[in-house]
Amino acid sequence: MAFNLLNEIQKRIVVFDGAMGTLLLEKGLVREVCPESLNITHGDVIQEIHTRYIEAGARVVQSNTFGANRIKLKEWGLESRVEEINTLALTYARKACGNNAVAAASIGPTGKILEPAGSFTFEEALDVFREQIRGVLKGGAQAIIIETMSQLNEARAALIAARELTNLPVICTMTFEKNSRTLMGTEAAAAALVLQSLGADIIGVNCSLGPGELINVVHEMYQVASVPILVQPNAGIPVMEGGQTLYPVGPEEFARLCINLIEAGAGAVGGCCGTTPEHIRALTEATRGLKPPKIAGKRITALTSSTTPLFITETLPVRVIGERINPTGRKDLSEEIKRGIPDGILREAVEQRQAGADILDVNVGVPGIDERAFMERAVREIQKLVDVPLCIDSSNPEAIEGGLKAFCGKALVNSVNGKEESLDAVLPLVKKYGACCIGLTIDERGIPENAEERFQIAKKIIERAGMMGIPREDIIIDCLTLTAGTHQSQVEETLKAIRMVKAYLGNPTALGVSNISFGLPKRDLLNATFLALALGAGLDLPIINPLSKEMMNTVKAFDVLSSRDRASERYIKLFSQNLPEKKQIESHTHPDSEADLGKTL
Amino acid sequence: MAFNLLNEIQKRIVVFDGAMGTLLLEKGLVREVCPESLNITHGDVIQEIHTRYIEAGARVVQSNTFGANRIKLKEWGLESRVEEINTLALTYARKACGNNAVAAASIGPTGKILEPAGSFTFEEALDVFREQIRGVLKGGAQAIIIETMSQLNEARAALIAARELTNLPVICTMTFEKNSRTLMGTEAAAAALVLQSLGADIIGVNCSLGPGELINVVHEMYQVASVPILVQPNAGIPVMEGGQTLYPVGPEEFARLCINLIEAGAGAVGGCCGTTPEHIRALTEATRGLKPPKIAGKRITALTSSTTPLFITETLPVRVIGERINPTGRKDLSEEIKRGIPDGILREAVEQRQAGADILDVNVGVPGIDERAFMERAVREIQKLVDVPLCIDSSNPEAIEGGLKAFCGKALVNSVNGKEESLDAVLPLVKKYGACCIGLTIDERGIPENAEERFQIAKKIIERAGMMGIPREDIIIDCLTLTAGTHQSQVEETLKAIRMVKAYLGNPTALGVSNISFGLPKRDLLNATFLALALGAGLDLPIINPLSKEMMNTVKAFDVLSSRDRASERYIKLFSQNLPEKKQIESHTHPDSEADLGKTL
Ligand SMILES: [Zn+2]
Ligand SMILES: [Zn+2]
Ligand SMILES: [Zn+2]
Repeated sequence: MAFNLLNEIQKRIVVFDGAMGTLLLEKGLVREVCPESLNITHGDVIQEIHTRYIEAGARVVQSNTFGANRIKLKEWGLESRVEEINTLALTYARKACGNNAVAAASIGPTGKILEPAGSFTFEEALDVFREQIRGVLKGGAQAIIIETMSQLNEARAALIAARELTNLPVICTMTFEKNSRTLMGTEAAAAALVLQSLGADIIGVNCSLGPGELINVVHEMYQVASVPILVQPNAGIPVMEGGQTLYPVGPEEFARLCINLIEAGAGAVGGCCGTTPEHIRALTEATRGLKPPKIAGKRITALTSSTTPLFITETLPVRVIGERINPTGRKDLSEEIKRGIPDGILREAVEQRQAGADILDVNVGVPGIDERAFMERAVREIQKLVDVPLCIDSSNPEAIEGGLKAFCGKALVNSVNGKEESLDAVLPLVKKYGACCIGLTIDERGIPENAEERFQIAKKIIERAGMMGIPREDIIIDCLTLTAGTHQSQVEETLKAIRMVKAYLGNPTALGVSNISFGLPKRDLLNATFLALALGAGLDLPIINPLSKEMMNTVKAFDVLSSRDRASERYIKLFSQNLPEKKQIESHTHPDSEADLGKTL
Repeated sequence: MAFNLLNEIQKRIVVFDGAMGTLLLEKGLVREVCPESLNITHGDVIQEIHTRYIEAGARVVQSNTFGANRIKLKEWGLESRVEEINTLALTYARKACGNNAVAAASIGPTGKILEPAGSFTFEEALDVFREQIRGVLKGGAQAIIIETMSQLNEARAALIAARELTNLPVICTMTFEKNSRTLMGTEAAAAALVLQSLGADIIGVNCSLGPGELINVVHEMYQVASVPILVQPNAGIPVMEGGQTLYPVGPEEFARLCINLIEAGAGAVGGCCGTTPEHIRALTEATRGLKPPKIAGKRITALTSSTTPLFITETLPVRVIGERINPTGRKDLSEEIKRGIPDGILREAVEQRQAGADILDVNVGVPGIDERAFMERAVREIQKLVDVPLCIDSSNPEAIEGGLKAFCGKALVNSVNGKEESLDAVLPLVKKYGACCIGLTIDERGIPENAEERFQIAKKIIERAGMMGIPREDIIIDCLTLTAGTHQSQVEETLKAIRMVKAYLGNPTALGVSNISFGLPKRDLLNATFLALALGAGLDLPIINPLSKEMMNTVKAFDVLSSRDRASERYIKLFSQNLPEKKQIESHTHPDSEADLGKTL
């Protein structure tokens, strides 16, 4: 290979190539013909275009395989020749590259709308991408570049397929609108979080707009990026002139605008529609000797819905995990799940979201059902209704995998624990599907009575996750609470364990709060008070019933008291319509106080 | 001097003498005559009795001055000869002692009922005792033994007078009923706490009952004692036989029963009514070579009412200081105080007690009144109504002294702070009146913004108190809170300061909680949540409005969660009449949930 792409991008700005289609058009080769069929008929031309880009300074070229998937090729009756076309394309790319550049296999979208928005299933997409990627690998691809993706779920499918099949560098770039969201509404930061969690070594944006319009996308991605960012803009926003599509940004201007993108966080640049070897030459000149932007070492824990990131950090409001989608002890839900009806679950989802839950736990564990199938369905249906991260909650790894696959975003898994069996079954799924995971401080011996041993299990889980390549900030520790009714002295051990995790590991913590009051009267009071204590000890993600006003109010007050609700803005907005303070105090004074005093005197 | 009494009692059991009256009766000397007049008329007999006790092994003898105070002597027309009688008595005692024993001046009760129960004022009592003590000091007393006190307030007056006049060892023993309380209801532990705080070097019980009936009193005192305990029982409970009072417990039995008292915690023993040199000889034999009980080094913070101790420790429920007796911002109370009417204050006292306050803060600071006089009156009146420790709250040292003098028990002072002026004015009062004191972490520079500097002020206050002889556990630190509305980031500093005080100093902490929410809406929610956080951080004594159900409930829930409410007994008792759990949960579900879901779908 010419050089190690992932090492190189640490050291200097890496220049990618520009458009293939534009040059083919120049040669009159793509009118009324499948561009990828040229790999069969005009391999020499394809190779020559690659060579021109390499001569212009490109260090990575993208094979002529953008539409070489079964779905797109079918439009030209070529669906049986997927392997051949992809293999050939990479053969020419490799020939052009020699030892001067890296041959990256371009993987473009299928053109289908994926579930949940469309009817094309995630499994079908996975299969299509697997087939194409096998082809490019056979042809000698030195990297995979999944590009021009406008659907997050399709990018996920392509990335998962790539990661199943190869350890080569995998790049994934998406397209964004002027509002820095994808066509389907995914924010750039959410895309970045999902793509890097799924194992992309380089993430970014291509096509979309010109280099002058992509600065916000790059900036938003850079805020959350744990991997380098690639930008391949078009040569400006096209204008129609005399029936011809013209890209208005010339090489020098293109190069100049790309420098702004590098300053905003891009570590690799290239071109998309309308760019030519001249653009790449100018880019090569302009970026010579530039250092790439630093990628932040310390990272924030984040989940995403299909559109929006949710950051879990001590400077932002406490995030509440709604616990109510759970048939345990709920006859109504159990019955509906058994009969395959998700209505109760959807009602709970909407109600909890309206009550302020930030994340919804989804547990559909009812004996006798196909839990995996129901979990997949529940996740899909919930995601159509509410745009929040979901927490896939099951003791069945198959059901967890079903939920993770179905969820378009960065999910949370509930849970792994310190048992070998659990670590072995759950952590690979967390890694594969790019999720965060709750680690329960329980192992083969049960829940340890003291904080120190719970802390040790937490440490073990984080270490084991790290060995699998799961970043430590993606493990959220649940120190577990028993009921104060039967295990009073262990309440303090739970709080102490939380304090230890925060002090010595720094990981976020989750905790199912309501268990504390099981079997005792006035449960809401105990729950809310314990919640405050746990938040004070360092709890980040309370798992509670968001319909409990007491607990939600405690969270809101804690946000004020911990400066998470800056200047108490949310609190004041929420409660300032209340009665004036004076009347509230009055209402607390004993109504019969005069009479009572008389009796006592 | 024969030996240093306070050193000696660390090393071995010290034997005191027995009854004077019994021997005088034998000689036919006390019928129809003032026993103390014998110091004038029969000094040789008095000296001989002392000598007989010393020969029997007594190492401390008590002068014939039990009733030699102005009030008692007046019954015999001898009120003008207080000094002479006391001086003479001590002269004979000293002669008898030589280098073999310590001459302790007996100070008995006046026979008057002190305020608040009676009309004899504390000031009058102080004056009477001062006069007598001046006499015994002139006669060469080597120790003061205040004894046979049945009123805590009278013992307080005698002790304060003694401590004003001498640095000699001061002993104070009271009399108890069979229920281990004084005639006026003071528990042995409460008596012990008050007496040792007022500077008694040895505390204990005398007279009362026989050695077989005093084991509980000694045991209760020993639990809280920071000084050695002296027991001087009667020779059993007297029986009438043929018109004569007979004390049934002979020397051997007496000595044997006294050993049990030593095992229960007594470090010094002697006799009272009915005991003779033979009893003391038996006691001397029986206790030879015995080691005294250890006096606990680590002591618990405690306050008392006039009858009952209130321990402040992490293993017992959180103690609430009721804040409502305070005219600040309360026009009604201010007006009443200005007009000299304590009704509003008394109503607040009773209401707060009924609502569960454990301690009542008393602040009567209204401009233009005689604060000291009103404070004294308020404290006396409140104490008649409610039997709880009071917290004397004033910025005026005179008013603090008035309140402390008037309060019969171990009070709390609110407050001293880190300013030199405050330390100089307040700490001597705390020491003199044996109180606990709240130390505010503020000094000349104001309230420090960060926890570390607040901690340093706390340390300084504790050290300065220690230099004055105030035990560190009697200083309660208030780390102060500003409102979250204007000082949001300092909320965490307050909590951090509390954690630091608990971790590095171990002192109890107090905190006025409600200030946190000033200027913000929904104050009760912020107050209750902050209260939970502060309790979790180590707050022991919240200063709150006990009529706020939210806050009192938070305390009750915290008691469960921190194992202070053992087996949740109090919580269950308090709340188990509530609706069954299921109905409570139901009431949280959204009543319009079906309709809402419809809208969303
Ligand atoms: Zn393009
Ligand atoms: Zn392109
Ligand atoms: Zn007696």
